[in-house]
Amino acid sequence: MSADLRIDGARLLASLEELGRHGALPGGGTNRLALSDADRAARDWTVARMRALDMAVEIDAIGNVFATHAGEEDLPPVATGSHIDTVRTGGLYDGNYGVLAGLEVVATLRAAGRRTRRPIQVAFFTNEEGARFQPDMLGSLVHVGGMPLEEALAVRAVDNGALLGEELLRIGYAGSAPVGRPCVDSFVELHIEQGPVLDREGLAIGVVEGVQGICWTELTFTGRSNHAGTTPMALRQDAGMAAARVAAFAHELSQRYGGRQLATVGALTLQPNLVNVIAQSALMTVDLRNTDGAVLQQAQAELLACARRIAAEHGVLLSHRSLADFAPVAFDAALVDSVERAAHSQGLATLRMPSGAGHDAQMFARVCPTAMVFVPSRDGLSHNVREFTAPEQLVQGANVLLQVLLERADR
Amino acid sequence: MSADLRIDGARLLASLEELGRHGALPGGGTNRLALSDADRAARDWTVARMRALDMAVEIDAIGNVFATHAGEEDLPPVATGSHIDTVRTGGLYDGNYGVLAGLEVVATLRAAGRRTRRPIQVAFFTNEEGARFQPDMLGSLVHVGGMPLEEALAVRAVDNGALLGEELLRIGYAGSAPVGRPCVDSFVELHIEQGPVLDREGLAIGVVEGVQGICWTELTFTGRSNHAGTTPMALRQDAGMAAARVAAFAHELSQRYGGRQLATVGALTLQPNLVNVIAQSALMTVDLRNTDGAVLQQAQAELLACARRIAAEHGVLLSHRSLADFAPVAFDAALVDSVERAAHSQGLATLRMPSGAGHDAQMFARVCPTAMVFVPSRDGLSHNVREFTAPEQLVQGANVLLQVLLERADR
Repeated sequence: MSADLRIDGARLLASLEELGRHGALPGGGTNRLALSDADRAARDWTVARMRALDMAVEIDAIGNVFATHAGEEDLPPVATGSHIDTVRTGGLYDGNYGVLAGLEVVATLRAAGRRTRRPIQVAFFTNEEGARFQPDMLGSLVHVGGMPLEEALAVRAVDNGALLGEELLRIGYAGSAPVGRPCVDSFVELHIEQGPVLDREGLAIGVVEGVQGICWTELTFTGRSNHAGTTPMALRQDAGMAAARVAAFAHELSQRYGGRQLATVGALTLQPNLVNVIAQSALMTVDLRNTDGAVLQQAQAELLACARRIAAEHGVLLSHRSLADFAPVAFDAALVDSVERAAHSQGLATLRMPSGAGHDAQMFARVCPTAMVFVPSRDGLSHNVREFTAPEQLVQGANVLLQVLLERADR
Repeated sequence: MSADLRIDGARLLASLEELGRHGALPGGGTNRLALSDADRAARDWTVARMRALDMAVEIDAIGNVFATHAGEEDLPPVATGSHIDTVRTGGLYDGNYGVLAGLEVVATLRAAGRRTRRPIQVAFFTNEEGARFQPDMLGSLVHVGGMPLEEALAVRAVDNGALLGEELLRIGYAGSAPVGRPCVDSFVELHIEQGPVLDREGLAIGVVEGVQGICWTELTFTGRSNHAGTTPMALRQDAGMAAARVAAFAHELSQRYGGRQLATVGALTLQPNLVNVIAQSALMTVDLRNTDGAVLQQAQAELLACARRIAAEHGVLLSHRSLADFAPVAFDAALVDSVERAAHSQGLATLRMPSGAGHDAQMFARVCPTAMVFVPSRDGLSHNVREFTAPEQLVQGANVLLQVLLERADR
């Protein structure tokens, strides 16, 4: 056993700082949109680090990068990793932490002369954030065969309209390894929580049991613009009021369902948006999430029924379209147990929790046993240059990853 | 008596078309913002028409124009009129109709060689719409002494920042007649309804009993922007949800109060307004109106109490400010009766109703007996290039005005 093996915390933290220099923003944080020049520089730096660890590096046709630390036997590798692209105002840890902690695990094994039975693979995936190309988690989605390669290469950048395939060529990351049939033993992703729960509770490790399901719906109410002073209530077709009532219903629904039902109306736009003019139209989004797929579908059905009823009450037209619809993902029970065991063996307090955000790991859950490890995000800040996780928490999470990978790769 | 005297409908309709050419929009309607070049041209045209009727024209220091048709005795005049400025996308009738119908009454009396005991005065007032200078109804407000002249002259245009006083000089309408102490027997304003009630009910004449009270409030909720997927409901400070719930309450309040309680949330803006980000802030307006001032104050108090309670529930900050607060105006009962009698004597069906919009007449209600006559607005369309009232309805309204002015001026 290697219960006393520990990663080099200073080396891990230094590597996070170094990677963060690529696309660094003047006031802190990083802007490293997928397949930008900054992303190329960060990829080059990371690949150099992989090669310095004598890892075998492969790049696939969608630009995902896989570095393998050979095992004693030629078996499917135990994989870890995440992404190194960021949103326009990202921090140092989102994604990067999972990749660099994986490399730190390999560096630790290498320094200790320790070889596992199965190979250990550390990967980073193209365009996880979705801030430059849609959908998000595109690289891992293509990797597991969830999206045809040709379709992915033809996606256009939201900033300058460039084709993803051309941008891959431009930055030198259109690789030759095939996509669609990954051969991997299992996948474990280490990530910051991006939410406030661990920080609030003062816990070191989130044992992630799965990813909650997501239903995004765009609702458009079309009424009639009229004078707010001269139009009796009964003769109105007030699109804004209909939208506000549906938003209030979404809140009421989340309270009534309780538990892990989330409801967010993040966007709501009225036209013409004037104090004394009844709104002609209202465009709103409703983001519903739940770890239980059946409950989520029930909530979504209730929401649409309510929207139809309220639209009819106000005499306004309702149209709606789905912007996203993902069923919940359950991670592998044995691997989840392994994460929890590793944390407890290091004396770390844990919480079993779902992931509220999407991650590359959920793509792997389609093809192999998968789990995730969370560390706290101070105040839950995410996609924010003030994103922060304390150094000791970063080191604790990487040591849990080390132990899980060892246990898995040695079996 | 002059029960058989009737205005010349064709002449009235032609004058509406002619005035509508100043500031005409390509697809119909007019853009004649106060003190613009188009407004100057329309003023010049109207003053020429007044002079052609041998009326004595006076311009006061805020640019209001008064044309007097002499009476048999030198008594305070019975006044009528409205405004000839329009919103950016106005129609042919809003304001213009009241002015030109007044002049048509004088033309009819003149053609019939008919002179009344008291003079009849036809006026148009500066900046009634408030589309270029705030507040609206500015000219009549200054005229009755409700706003100091110096303050009004120092108001800046919302489009180009020009001073109102300078714009008056520029277009040649900074007159010498004093403001603040009007000496007038009474005031009757003829106007399109700007609402759907008469059109819906198939009625010719609205007998306006007063102007409803108005409370405009701007509410700002400030919460915290967070990830919609990773932030539990209990840890949110969702400014958007707080605003939506207050809007829904405003609707519920209008239904509960019933009668003439109106509630409109015309403007609601979220920041950052993204599908998966909890709103950091929400800016909304609530427009409450009622003909009963005490009930309106009660509604406003309930609204603010609700906003405070909901803000506390969501852990968001609330700030609010009043954008407008006008008590209801009651018109003169005898003059209102006179309007109703005139309509009935011409076989026209009437409805007693409040005015939902503000009008110059409400300023006169402070200083003399005042009433208004409404004609239907098709579909209630107002401040819209498709604003429309049928020719026969325009003629009917002007004949009611003729009879009311005759009765009043002959007494």
